[in-house]
Parts: sequence; C-alpha cells; structure tokens
Amino acid sequence: MINEKMYELGSKRSIIREIFEYGNMRRSIVGVDNVYDFSLGNPNVPSPKELDASISKLCIKEGIHAYTSAPGAISVREAIAKNLNERFKTSFHKDNLYLTVGAAAALTATLRGLCNPGDEVITFAPYFTEYKVFTESALAKLVVVSPDFKNFQIKFDEFEKLINKNTKAVIINSPNNPSGVVYKEETIIKLAKILKEKSIEFGNPIYLISDEPYREIVYNNVQVPFVTKYYNNAIVCYSYSKSLSLPGERLGYVLVPDQVDDSKIVYAAICGAGRALGYVCAPSLFQFVIEECVNITSDMSYYEVNRNIILNGLRELGFECIEPDGAFYLFVKSPIADANEFAKKAQEYDILIVPGDDFGCPGYVRIAYCVRKKIIENSLPAFKKLAEFYNL
Amino acid sequence: MINEKMYELGSKRSIIREIFEYGNMRRSIVGVDNVYDFSLGNPNVPSPKELDASISKLCIKEGIHAYTSAPGAISVREAIAKNLNERFKTSFHKDNLYLTVGAAAALTATLRGLCNPGDEVITFAPYFTEYKVFTESALAKLVVVSPDFKNFQIKFDEFEKLINKNTKAVIINSPNNPSGVVYKEETIIKLAKILKEKSIEFGNPIYLISDEPYREIVYNNVQVPFVTKYYNNAIVCYSYSKSLSLPGERLGYVLVPDQVDDSKIVYAAICGAGRALGYVCAPSLFQFVIEECVNITSDMSYYEVNRNIILNGLRELGFECIEPDGAFYLFVKSPIADANEFAKKAQEYDILIVPGDDFGCPGYVRIAYCVRKKIIENSLPAFKKLAEFYNL
Repeated sequence: MINEKMYELGSKRSIIREIFEYGNMRRSIVGVDNVYDFSLGNPNVPSPKELDASISKLCIKEGIHAYTSAPGAISVREAIAKNLNERFKTSFHKDNLYLTVGAAAALTATLRGLCNPGDEVITFAPYFTEYKVFTESALAKLVVVSPDFKNFQIKFDEFEKLINKNTKAVIINSPNNPSGVVYKEETIIKLAKILKEKSIEFGNPIYLISDEPYREIVYNNVQVPFVTKYYNNAIVCYSYSKSLSLPGERLGYVLVPDQVDDSKIVYAAICGAGRALGYVCAPSLFQFVIEECVNITSDMSYYEVNRNIILNGLRELGFECIEPDGAFYLFVKSPIADANEFAKKAQEYDILIVPGDDFGCPGYVRIAYCVRKKIIENSLPAFKKLAEFYNL
Repeated sequence: MINEKMYELGSKRSIIREIFEYGNMRRSIVGVDNVYDFSLGNPNVPSPKELDASISKLCIKEGIHAYTSAPGAISVREAIAKNLNERFKTSFHKDNLYLTVGAAAALTATLRGLCNPGDEVITFAPYFTEYKVFTESALAKLVVVSPDFKNFQIKFDEFEKLINKNTKAVIINSPNNPSGVVYKEETIIKLAKILKEKSIEFGNPIYLISDEPYREIVYNNVQVPFVTKYYNNAIVCYSYSKSLSLPGERLGYVLVPDQVDDSKIVYAAICGAGRALGYVCAPSLFQFVIEECVNITSDMSYYEVNRNIILNGLRELGFECIEPDGAFYLFVKSPIADANEFAKKAQEYDILIVPGDDFGCPGYVRIAYCVRKKIIENSLPAFKKLAEFYNL
C-alpha cells in the first residue's frame, strides 16, 4: 500500500552503497589497512586548509546559519559566475545559477523541471547508475546508448537512431564516472551538431545536461571542453564534492546560460522543481565557504599519484585497463565475461570493486582509486593473487 | 514544453518568500531598523555558543566532510534516539531514524514514500503553505479541513466526513505555523481514535505525519503531546532549524517507530524516496554538530519576550489575536474581510505580514515575531497608525 517503487529503491540499495557498507563491516574485522575498498567515490584528499579556516571564521558570523534566498545567496552566485567567466571566458551572471544540495539535487531538479510524463532522456553507457533513478523520478524514461568499447567516446550512429520526438534531454558526464574518460572536443562538436539538427527536425529543443563534478580532476593536461561554448541549449550540473573534497556537505549548482531557449522559463522551472522536491536552499554556511574558496581546489596531484600506481600495477599484472584522462576511477576489463562473478572473487581477497553492469557496461569493473596511497600499495599483492587465479 | 507545473512553482514563488525578498529591497532603502519584517520564520536567536565551538572543533577532523551512510551517520542517529528516549520515555533506536536535509525533505520523502497516484492526504487549516506543493509533488491530493475559528483545534465532524478509502495520511503541525496554537492532549486522543477506527473501516493504515519543527518553542509550560504515544501509525518529521537556529543548514529527520505497521517497509520506502528525490545524505558536518549539541537548544526565552510585547501591544491597539502557545507566530484577525488588502495596507507602513489565505485561513494574517526585539518595539507606532486607519 505504500509506494512500491520507492520501497524497491530503499530496500535494494545501489550496489555501490551495498559494497561500501560491506567494507565498513569488513574493516571492523580485519582492520582499515587490510580492506582494499575501491567501491565509493568518496574523495580522500583533504579539503584545502583555507577551507577549514574559512569555516571557523564564518561560523561565528551573525546570520550565517539563516535561510538564504531559495536560488542561493546573491554574493555566492556572483562569486561563482565570476570564477567561471575568468576560467572559460564566458559571461554568466548570478541569475544563471541555482545553488543546489549537490549534483544529485542539481540533476533531479533539472530533470523534473524539464520533463513531462512520457519524455525520454538519453545517456551513454557507461553511465552513473543513479541517472536511471533520477530520470524515472521525473516520470521520464532513460534511454541508453550502448558503450563504445573502442574509445569510450560516443556511438553516434546508435545515438541518432534513438532520438525521437519524445527526446527531451541528453545527459553526458565527462570526465566520466565510471570510465575516467574525457570526451574529446571533436566528440562534443559532433554531439552538438546532431542535437541542433534533431532539435530542428522535431521542432523542440533537446537540452544537453552536462554533469561534471570531476571537471577539475584531469591528467596530462587533458582539456575538458566547456559545453555551453558548443551548444546553446546546454545546462551544466556541478558539485564541489570532488574539487573541494566536500561530498557529504552537499553543495553544487545548476547553470542555465542566457543563450538557452526561453532561458528564464527553464531556470524558473528548475527552481520550481527544487521547491517541489523539498529543497529550501543549499546549506548556508557552505554556500559562503564556497564564495571564499571558489578559486581553490584540493591538491589534485594526489589522485595522479594513485592513478599511476594502480594503472601501471594492474597493467603489469596483465589486467586490461582503460587509460583514465580524469576523475578518480579506473575501468578494468573483467578477465571473465561475468564481471559480477569477477567482483565477487575479488572480494575474497578483500578487494572491493564495482561491477560495470550497473553502469550499463557489463564485462568491466570500476576501481575508485580515491583512497590512501597505502591502500593501493597494499592492494597490489592481493591483485597479484587475483591475476594468478585467472592465469593472467 | 518544459514542465509547466514546475515553471509555475518556480515563477509564482510562495508569497512568504515574495514578501521576504521585498523586505530585502526595502531595507536597502529605508534601513534595517525601519522595516518591520514579520514575513519569514527565520529564527533570529543566535545558535548556542557551544554549537559554533563544536563546528570549529569538528571541521578540522579528518573525514568530517565525507559522505555518510545514506540514512545518516550511525553515531548521530544513536545520539538522537537516546535524546528522544530520555525526554519522552520511548525506546527508539538508530534504525527508526532517517536524517534529512531539513523538515521539508523529511516531508517530501515521507509523502513520496507513502503515496501512490490518486491517494489523498488530509491536513487542517491553517496549515503550512508548502504541504500542498509537497503532497502534489508526491502525485497525491491535499484535502483541507476548514479552520476551527473558535479554538484553532480540529473540526472533527468535517474531518471524519473527508476520510475515505483513498486517504493515505494526515499531516498535523503543532505548535502550529501559522497560528502558534498547540493541539491539546484531548485533541490528539480524539484524532488517534478516529484514525484507528477509519483504518479498520477501510482496511488500510492511515498514517499520521507529525511535522514538529517548533516542538521546543512553547510558552507557559504548555505540553506538546508526543504523537507516537497515542497512535501506532505515527511518523514524526523534525528539523533542527528552530531549536538550534540553523534553518539554512538543512538538518532534520524522519522518525518511523517500530510500532508502525510494516515499519521496516515504510522506513525503506521513505529512504528510497529520499534517494529518488536526489538526497544523498544530510549535510555531514552538521550531522556531527547535532550529535554534539543534541541536548541543547538556543535561548528560547527570547521568543517569549517578543511574544509578550507583540501580543500585548496589538491587543491594546484593538487587534484581535489568537494567543500563541508555541512557535514564534502570532495569528491576527484582519480588521477587514480581505486579509490580502489588510496586509497590503500594512506594507504602506513598512509592516510586512503574510495574509492567511495561503495558509487556508482567509481573514487572518501571520506575524512572525522571530525578529530583534527592537524591530518589534519600533513597529508598535506603525501598528498604531494602522489601527487608527481602521478605526480600531
């Protein structure tokens, strides 16, 4: 008699959370250094020192815990717009920004604001598992383009065939969770071209939703194209979870540029959706922390060290790895067809990794290497045993 | 082509927020002491000093900004359960609690978890305006029992007639926003009796959702009955916004006692709904702040001082006021039938008050007296002019 769909979402938790909880249990038995828990994208690089100093300073300020305006405090939105404009030579202003309780809230508000029942939203495998939950929560349907196993870019032929009159939006995520791959500029250009053509063909804008919490985590000077420069109807969903190592604090934004068709209407619908979902304002203290720390990030070189150890280590052991351009995930081909079975076997060696099936990409596993270097180093002998088990 | 309903919610903002924004504008013109802004329930009593000390101490702790488990950190939920058990002689435990991003999120997750399309949710006027938004967001319909103008308790005859096979839940809010009234024990007992009978008659539990962010703000030793002691299928939605003066930080919980029919299923559905709405976890730093500060509140005597000044002041001027037992709202009968017109006239004297219409209670206005004492004192001459205008 309660809502069965919600019960299912609450009882059958995401496999990532499932493994994370298992890891907590396992750590209490064998010790924190002996569980090689690569399950969760929980940044382990500390927040910058300036950030904690900023919290201590701000928390004694009068009114710091008060409600802000629903879209976020004006000074905070101005600071974020300025930061974006300096970095990307754009001309955003405060009224393009709606501050949210993290990227998840940015996505649910955007999808709910844009979609009507029966609408379709397209994404590309491998994709972040919760896109399906968020899209269905907005009463729309998630349509998945199968993985491009060659380059982990986009299978455009298949994509074009899946666009129809019900296609309301397309979600991309670059740097990608779980593959670590960044979409090249040529990929974004081609994607924009198709979206323009199809928007004209069907007489309605198809919105490009760019979910980019990993924008600042890239390696070897790879450039992440800023989508609003390539496509007018692009909306950016961002989170400070990774760039400032604040995932639990839930602070992000939706960016709706003026160039979006009926920009003000789209922005209002997204704010209205936030209201309907129960978001009153983004956490106030951390809004002002972001204002003060908008130009800094955690020490991202940390992830590069981890990346190189795990990438080289696993390749030497004979594992086939997708080279990550960004984020803190390594996507590894399962040595057997069933990645679930492979992940279960790894668990016997206290290696906790997530099968690709839930990311729409069977046959692969995701290794979140945002862990202490020591855990990665300790894990290599365990991975060696795993490789030996599979005769790699 | 976007979602019209969401656009409407985003563009036609709640009248309270509307007036709040007007107040911001007006203050910048005539000065902060000359706008008598009684529009918003934004607690002005400072958070306790211990709370800010706790923030400074916690923010340098490793991992404090990390994701917590989705329902909230275990130690935090244990501390809250212990606090409730000590105060109300209950026996709750951590798995009865789901920490949320404020009471609004507690309500949206609860309603979405419980309701199916076509369900009905009953509440009693005057009621918090967003109940309608939250209920409709859960695809259910809000049914309103008209105000009991005599005592601002419940019109039981009308209530009984409105219950039918589609009634999934009843929302109460005591101490009440906007009336300030507390439901007496006899009201809760009668409500529970009817809900039990009707649950049996229709063969399904009717859940009682108690929205009680004002529980700790009461006057003259009035007791607020703890609903789970009177009715098995009661679910509590709480927020620390008022008790610790943290409205912008968004921290609250849903309490689903074991005694609720299929308690674990209901709890899972509410957690699942939170996930579908984009809530990943409640803000992490403030979860741990709550753990440390669970036994303290802001200095609530502050509101009592304000209450007495405004209540006595307005009565002396000839206004008809409902005596508030709790919360920080004074509900005043409009001297003319149209409370909107009255509120507009008050605005000419820089008195910002909210018409009762949006609370389902035309003919009254709400005065949120959670403002500096000086503002209240300064406002009395303006109220005097208003009284004179209406020949009171």
